[in-house]
Amino acid sequence: MSETLSHTVDDLYSARVRRAGPPRLGDPRRSASLISFLAGFPDPSSLPKADVIEATRVALERDGEWALQYGASQGYQRLRDELLIKLRRDQGIEASDENLLITNGASQGLDLLVQALCDPGDVVLSEEPTWSGAVACFRGAGAEVVTIPLDAEGTDVEALASELASIVASGRQPKFFYTIPNFQNPTGVTTTLARRKRIVDLAHEYGFVVIEDDAYSDLRYRGRRVPTIYSLDDQGLVVYLSTFSKIMAAGVRLGWVVASPELIGTLSSLKAEGGTSPFAGAVAAEFCASGTLVEHIAELTALYASRHDAMLDAMTANMPDGVKWTDPDGGFFVWVHLPDALSAQALAARTREQGVEFLPGTACHFDGGDQTLRLSYSFADEAQIREGIALLANAIRAEMS
Amino acid sequence: MSETLSHTVDDLYSARVRRAGPPRLGDPRRSASLISFLAGFPDPSSLPKADVIEATRVALERDGEWALQYGASQGYQRLRDELLIKLRRDQGIEASDENLLITNGASQGLDLLVQALCDPGDVVLSEEPTWSGAVACFRGAGAEVVTIPLDAEGTDVEALASELASIVASGRQPKFFYTIPNFQNPTGVTTTLARRKRIVDLAHEYGFVVIEDDAYSDLRYRGRRVPTIYSLDDQGLVVYLSTFSKIMAAGVRLGWVVASPELIGTLSSLKAEGGTSPFAGAVAAEFCASGTLVEHIAELTALYASRHDAMLDAMTANMPDGVKWTDPDGGFFVWVHLPDALSAQALAARTREQGVEFLPGTACHFDGGDQTLRLSYSFADEAQIREGIALLANAIRAEMS
Repeated sequence: MSETLSHTVDDLYSARVRRAGPPRLGDPRRSASLISFLAGFPDPSSLPKADVIEATRVALERDGEWALQYGASQGYQRLRDELLIKLRRDQGIEASDENLLITNGASQGLDLLVQALCDPGDVVLSEEPTWSGAVACFRGAGAEVVTIPLDAEGTDVEALASELASIVASGRQPKFFYTIPNFQNPTGVTTTLARRKRIVDLAHEYGFVVIEDDAYSDLRYRGRRVPTIYSLDDQGLVVYLSTFSKIMAAGVRLGWVVASPELIGTLSSLKAEGGTSPFAGAVAAEFCASGTLVEHIAELTALYASRHDAMLDAMTANMPDGVKWTDPDGGFFVWVHLPDALSAQALAARTREQGVEFLPGTACHFDGGDQTLRLSYSFADEAQIREGIALLANAIRAEMS
Repeated sequence: MSETLSHTVDDLYSARVRRAGPPRLGDPRRSASLISFLAGFPDPSSLPKADVIEATRVALERDGEWALQYGASQGYQRLRDELLIKLRRDQGIEASDENLLITNGASQGLDLLVQALCDPGDVVLSEEPTWSGAVACFRGAGAEVVTIPLDAEGTDVEALASELASIVASGRQPKFFYTIPNFQNPTGVTTTLARRKRIVDLAHEYGFVVIEDDAYSDLRYRGRRVPTIYSLDDQGLVVYLSTFSKIMAAGVRLGWVVASPELIGTLSSLKAEGGTSPFAGAVAAEFCASGTLVEHIAELTALYASRHDAMLDAMTANMPDGVKWTDPDGGFFVWVHLPDALSAQALAARTREQGVEFLPGTACHFDGGDQTLRLSYSFADEAQIREGIALLANAIRAEMS
């Protein structure tokens, strides 16, 4: 070993790297020159610049010595206080401080949970299609993912029960079931109360964790709130995730986990960077405490309801026969099934040249899904939505012929 | 499986959880009622509240639509631009945008590197004693850690060479060597240029990554800057980590990784939460661009130099014979060896009752170290330093007799 050899870092990588996909999200600035239905990016003009400036001033004048310091591993205390109020008011969740962990977005909450629960080769369950970030996360962990379909009432709980029975019959322990019960990403469907109760019953029967990802529930345009899965569980097996990304500002990178105190302690111990930004936490706490969050959610709900209507109207007016889509009660997404034999990836390449982008459904599947695609109506304005859907419909028509 | 059993999450945990220690850092507020030499917490009164309020206003008025949006996985662009200027000016590092990744503090940078390079059972090398967060990180990864001692000239490179030879002779590939070359945490020593060159030569010979953690280098009180290990390497095997935690505000949770473009791409793909806070990034970029960072570093260097002098003077005036300590040229830490048979953990329990806290050296060791302790002079003011050191010296005297 006395000679100097040429070495590269590639030779040193862990198994984790070999399972990793590309970085999670593109840069939203790149989408700004297109009509973009690609991502769950909030509307740029809705982002509350002036309110965040003011919240920063008040928060730092009040508590700058601690907001600019390292912070507690559970997150900035005043934000935890405000989130407990919000969870009770907006989600009907009765939680205590020991149930709460502030994270870098809900995405970090999910990543920590997967780190805590999943060794490579473990069996987990997930809705399919689902959020593309979850697909990447479960793949990265080396999990064996058993997929559960959805229908108009949400998670197919009979399929879930059947898969659980066969997993356990084969002598394996399912670790968790990942679900997005409100305005699911990407399908837009909401899981009914009866099905939510069944999910909890199954968790109690089979002893797995339910990960309830609820990033969109405050943005409901119609219908009534359905109780959270978390609030239906009395055995500490449901974990609730949410975020400020859609209701205040994705750029503050703040989410939260609600879970049993024991699990919160475990997740905190896996948080290598320590407590999530006290600076961002103090600003968000002031944004809540001042009443701005409640007002802002009302404004956003009206904004996105109009966007939703513009997209659904444009779909109805433009789409050729054979294209099917969902109509969500809230959130950001319409899910589209293309007619037989059409490829969403091929369609995406074509429309992108014409200045329109969307998410091919393959990103939301662990396998397959190329006949599906997701349209987000959060980022493009109404005129762009009308123009973009017309263009997309023409491109589909061209592919069909 | 038709009966409902009592299940707990404990039954579901991964191997990773079994290797995890407690959460990384305590809450600094808890230290405020004590004379605290415990942690590398910046001085609370030095935290630039008014400057951060102003930087936030300017940054959001300039670019709020994007600072409050999701961001690029490498981090907020303007912050990357400013950091390249800072790295050239303050560290002599010539880097390009493709060499840079913004992280949630240097601690996340280290965690991502360990995820990228280390499978359970892999051999890694680390200075010992070292930063307690690194001890926890390497343990959590399940690494087999080969420890390298330090002396007054820094890393013992002959010990490093010898350990590398025997690792490779046993047919194993060392993955990385972790070093803190400036004002090392916890010993305060600085590794000489000759030794830095030797570390790079060894990396080239044996093909491992050097992780250069440089959180403190801007806070030098005397002597001249030594070139970074990063700047001595031409084969892309050295990774440089730093942070705003000590020079702007720990609460913004912003650090950076400088590495080869390939490795930056890999680390970005492991960043589950996507790009680090564009909000915090925009504020920090403005803090740099306005010239405030340079002024603030000058103020902090003067502040901590006085604290350093106060502590060293108090040590000389008060400590009984048999106690030995280091005298750093910068940074936050004095490293203390207790006389034979004294336990720093026992001493810590005694002094804490009297209102003084410090870090027992066991936290900085992978094994042993109870005859050592770390004193930080960053958090306590000069009067507290004088009072605390006198009290600590008395406690040591009491334990000795």
